[in-house]
Amino acid sequence: MKFDLEKSISILERTPVVLNSYLKGLSEDWTNHNEGENTWSPFDILGHLIVGEKTDWITRTQIIVSDNPDKNFKPFNMAAQFEYSKGKSLEHLLSEFEVLRNENLKKLRAMKLTDKQMSLTGFHPEFGEVSLKELVSTWVAHDLGHIAQISRVMAKQYKSEVGPWIKYLGILNK
Amino acid sequence: MKFDLEKSISILERTPVVLNSYLKGLSEDWTNHNEGENTWSPFDILGHLIVGEKTDWITRTQIIVSDNPDKNFKPFNMAAQFEYSKGKSLEHLLSEFEVLRNENLKKLRAMKLTDKQMSLTGFHPEFGEVSLKELVSTWVAHDLGHIAQISRVMAKQYKSEVGPWIKYLGILNK
Repeated sequence: MKFDLEKSISILERTPVVLNSYLKGLSEDWTNHNEGENTWSPFDILGHLIVGEKTDWITRTQIIVSDNPDKNFKPFNMAAQFEYSKGKSLEHLLSEFEVLRNENLKKLRAMKLTDKQMSLTGFHPEFGEVSLKELVSTWVAHDLGHIAQISRVMAKQYKSEVGPWIKYLGILNK
Repeated sequence: MKFDLEKSISILERTPVVLNSYLKGLSEDWTNHNEGENTWSPFDILGHLIVGEKTDWITRTQIIVSDNPDKNFKPFNMAAQFEYSKGKSLEHLLSEFEVLRNENLKKLRAMKLTDKQMSLTGFHPEFGEVSLKELVSTWVAHDLGHIAQISRVMAKQYKSEVGPWIKYLGILNK
């Protein structure tokens, strides 16, 4: 599948709805446990997605399309969610993510990006030159990856309960 | 996390809602492609979930709790969805799954299963003796596994579009 802005947005705008229907009101037994040391719970993942909305995707898009010749992206903080989410409820994070995502997609749409602009580039601290098309594609795949991760983390809470079926539940062995 | 019937149902009843918010109205570019030969698209996965509702989870639960001494499960057909889904739309499958899942959870609740009954067993064609607790836990983990799979299959449609970020998108390398 070739990159398509509208088809990308069709995934990005669903993510808060999917996360709400997946997690809202669920027991903390499902949402607050992780996969072991140095792994994230669904609660942690939600904080990470919020930090992305606040500091990554749209910020970097704006750097790429702006007239400012400085195209350097700031490094993304992969641990910021622990401080950020402290003391907040899952429900709070869910609605915060929904608001931020909807605002960001409004900003993205308002840019009325052309195909030509999708080839503009910014400078990633590790990768160097990256295009806007690659950034937005990554935003989409990153959402889908974290929905998969949430699914896996929750499934693993039943790892010792499924008995011999573990053989056919690949998700429990990842 | 120890098995809990109500907490299991809290996941099972969300799955049709999650799948609706995830897939309904989405372009076929996202829903009708797979990961390569002998893999499933989100459309195929949905058919597989329907076949499970029709022939597996509740059918096997009923075998386990019934007075009938024959506790043998029929083997599950892992290819039945291809014939079953033929000519149907994704929207059709989504609403069919929702109806079947809700009916099955109604049946499950109506059984008013006790903790003691959760240890009753049936006979699996490959594994031999399995408990009702293991069956219901597997139902839950199986749902979560297929939501993860749907996420992965959709993410992979952008595998060639994310550029160097593929390094940090583990989902694209599974």
